[in-house]
Amino acid sequence: MSGGIERLSVNQWTVRSWGVQELADGCARHGITAVGLWREHVAEFGLARTAKLARDAGLRVSSLCRGGFFGRPGWLDDNKAAIDEAAVLGAACLVLVVGGLPDNSKKLSAARQHVTDAVAQLVPYAEDRGVRLALEPMHPMYCADRGVLSTLSQALDLAGPHQTKTVGVIVDTFHLWWDPEVTAQIARAGREHRIAGFQVSDFLMPLPADVLLGRAMMGDGVIDFGPLCQAVSAAGYQGDVEVEIFNADVWAADPDDVLARMKDRYKALIANEISIISSKLSETFR
Amino acid sequence: MSGGIERLSVNQWTVRSWGVQELADGCARHGITAVGLWREHVAEFGLARTAKLARDAGLRVSSLCRGGFFGRPGWLDDNKAAIDEAAVLGAACLVLVVGGLPDNSKKLSAARQHVTDAVAQLVPYAEDRGVRLALEPMHPMYCADRGVLSTLSQALDLAGPHQTKTVGVIVDTFHLWWDPEVTAQIARAGREHRIAGFQVSDFLMPLPADVLLGRAMMGDGVIDFGPLCQAVSAAGYQGDVEVEIFNADVWAADPDDVLARMKDRYKALIANEISIISSKLSETFR
Repeated sequence: MSGGIERLSVNQWTVRSWGVQELADGCARHGITAVGLWREHVAEFGLARTAKLARDAGLRVSSLCRGGFFGRPGWLDDNKAAIDEAAVLGAACLVLVVGGLPDNSKKLSAARQHVTDAVAQLVPYAEDRGVRLALEPMHPMYCADRGVLSTLSQALDLAGPHQTKTVGVIVDTFHLWWDPEVTAQIARAGREHRIAGFQVSDFLMPLPADVLLGRAMMGDGVIDFGPLCQAVSAAGYQGDVEVEIFNADVWAADPDDVLARMKDRYKALIANEISIISSKLSETFR
Repeated sequence: MSGGIERLSVNQWTVRSWGVQELADGCARHGITAVGLWREHVAEFGLARTAKLARDAGLRVSSLCRGGFFGRPGWLDDNKAAIDEAAVLGAACLVLVVGGLPDNSKKLSAARQHVTDAVAQLVPYAEDRGVRLALEPMHPMYCADRGVLSTLSQALDLAGPHQTKTVGVIVDTFHLWWDPEVTAQIARAGREHRIAGFQVSDFLMPLPADVLLGRAMMGDGVIDFGPLCQAVSAAGYQGDVEVEIFNADVWAADPDDVLARMKDRYKALIANEISIISSKLSETFR
C-alpha cells in the first residue's frame, strides 16, 4: 500500500526519553508497527521481557543498535552478547558502528584492517544464531571517532566475502547523501542482496556545535529524499524504513509530538518514494 | 634536497592578519620561498604591485584562492576576473571552491551538473590566459554550503574532458584523508597529470563549533601524513606543498610563531615523505 506507514519504524533513540514499555505504548497509539531498539533500553527493561512485549504487541524489530566499536577493550565478548540479544529479539539485523581510530593512533589503514578482521571473527557466531550483521558506513566527519567505515562502496567490499544472510549493510540517508556514488552503490547493494536496513533522517545545516547531533527530522535539513528512496526501492529493498534522529530539539520535545510529526513527514517525503515497486504489486489495496 | 623547506608554501589565510607586504617580509625572515595568495589581500595591496613584490622577492605563487561558488549571482564575471588575476600573478593555479547547494534547493545532482557546465564555460577563457584551474574536492561535511565536489575521484572525472594544462585538481589532506579510495585516486591523478596543487593541514578532533575552523597545524589532529605525502610524491608531483589552516587558535597567535611552528612541523612530518622521488635525484646535495 502506497502512502501509508506500514513500513515505518521508529528508532528508540529518536524518542530516547522513553523506555521500552513507553515506546511500545506510543507505537500502539500512533499505529506504528516496527521499532529499532537500543541495547541500553533493552537491558533496562529486560531482554526476555522486551522480546515478549514486542511479540505480544505485534511490533517488528527492524534493528538492534548496536554492536561494533572494535577498537575498545572487550569488543569481542560485547559483540557476542549483542548478537545473542539480537537473536532473542528476532531483530532484522544488528547494526555495527565499527568505531574510529584507536586511542592515540593515526593509523587509519590499520584500523580499517582491524575492522575487516573483527567482522570475519564475528561471522561464524552470528551465523550460528541466525543473526544478520549490518555494517553501517558513517559520514566522513565521524571517521576519527566513530566509524572508519565511510562509504557504501567500502561497506559492500567488506561484506563481500561473507554470506548475504549473515552480513549486510545499512543505507542511512544522513551518512550517505553527499556521496557522488551513492545511487550506483545502492543499486549494487541491491544486486548483491546486502541491504539489511534503511535508516532515514535529514542533515542539518549549519551543523550544531556537537556534530553528533547534526541529524534532523526529514524535511528540516538539506537532503533530497526522493532519489535516495527511489534507489533503495529500485534495488528491491522491501523492509522497514527506520527513522533515527539524534537532535537536541527533537529530544527536548514531547515524544508523542515527535511521533506525530515523524508520521506526517514520512507520508509527505518518504512513503510514496519508497513504494515504487510495492505500490505496483498492491494497487488494488489503495 | 630532502628534509628542507624548499617546497614549503604558506597560504596567506594561515596568517590572515598579515597583508601581502607583511607576508612577503615574513617569508623572507623565515626562508620561505612560496605563497598561496587570496584575492581579497591582493586587491587590498594592488594586483600589479603584488605581482611585482612577489617577483622581486623571488616568491613563487603556488595558488590563488579562489574562484568558484558557481551558484552565486555574477559567478561568471567574478571567475573571469579571478582568472585574469591569476595570470598577472603567475600563479601555479586558481583554486576553485565550487560552492554548495543553491539557496533553497536540495537538488544535489542539478548543482553538480551546474558545476560541470560552469567549468566547461570557463575553460576557454582560462586557456587563453595560460591559467590552470584547480578543482578542489572538499570534505563531505561542506557539501551543502561550500562544495558539492566531494571526492578526488569526482574531481578527476570532472577534469577528464579538459586539457591537463588548463584543468587540474587540488589534493588537500584535510578534505581527503578519510577517503578509502584516496591513495588509489592520488595515483590516478598522477597518471592523468592532474595534480595542480598539494595543500596540507590536519583534521581537528573534536571538531570546533564552527566546522569551517576544523583545520589544525600538522601534528595537532588525526591525520597520518606519511601515506598521503608518499602517494603524492609517488604520483610524480614536484610542486609546492602549501600549508592552509583555518583555525581560531592559529589566527590568534603571533604570525611569526605560526610560521616557525609550521616549518618545524613541516620538517618533522612532511618534508621527508614528500621527497621520496626528488631525494633520489639529489642525494649529493644533502
